[in-house]
Amino acid sequence: MSGMTDWLGSVRFDENGLIPAIAQDAVDGTILMVAWMNAEALRETAETGRAVYWSRSRKRLWRKGEESGHRQLLREIRLDCDSDVILLKVEQEGGIACHTGRRSCFFQRLDTDGTPRWVNVEPVLKDPEHIYK
Amino acid sequence: MSGMTDWLGSVRFDENGLIPAIAQDAVDGTILMVAWMNAEALRETAETGRAVYWSRSRKRLWRKGEESGHRQLLREIRLDCDSDVILLKVEQEGGIACHTGRRSCFFQRLDTDGTPRWVNVEPVLKDPEHIYK
Repeated sequence: MSGMTDWLGSVRFDENGLIPAIAQDAVDGTILMVAWMNAEALRETAETGRAVYWSRSRKRLWRKGEESGHRQLLREIRLDCDSDVILLKVEQEGGIACHTGRRSCFFQRLDTDGTPRWVNVEPVLKDPEHIYK
Repeated sequence: MSGMTDWLGSVRFDENGLIPAIAQDAVDGTILMVAWMNAEALRETAETGRAVYWSRSRKRLWRKGEESGHRQLLREIRLDCDSDVILLKVEQEGGIACHTGRRSCFFQRLDTDGTPRWVNVEPVLKDPEHIYK
């Protein structure tokens, strides 16, 4: 086995062969998104320095930015204490990680003044219709 | 239905009634840990201002800090674009979120100089034997 295979062996993928991956802005710590990886996506991410996920809906590798141009340049890969969650520290090209055109997917904040409700607190930086040609 | 129930209705729990939750330091953005919540844990978190998770191994609510004293004081709850991941911005009491005695659970970093391998890059701040009495 190669070294690239060895390090993958200590990663605990779930019963579907997947592991959740958090993408975090390497500079200011903003959490950009959470997606899934299989072993191949994680290996390719480490080898190419570009975030690659597994699309559960399309059932294929999803090279982040392949359609939007908003690639994620890898700065660091971390693994948690249970070895079942990946953290990618990345530089987000174009500054937009979310398919809604926002910087971060975590744009709904629970407002607890009065009746609790989710409010959108992040601006749309680019019309989604112009992200995906 | 109460307002507290209404906002829970837009959260997409998985087939086991759970949703992954990321705990992030509200001040400096460090990702502390990832755990799971059911609807009751999320409701109690919002109502009490203390992070409450669902322990999959113990199959019961896990009020973070109930044994270690390292509670997580809630500053903000976020929900992602697919409404299937929660982000808690918290103030971590004692500065230690991980059961290994480290600040963050994400202490394994992939070292790609030479043969790739996971290296522990966060110091143990407190002996785990002294966290749990």
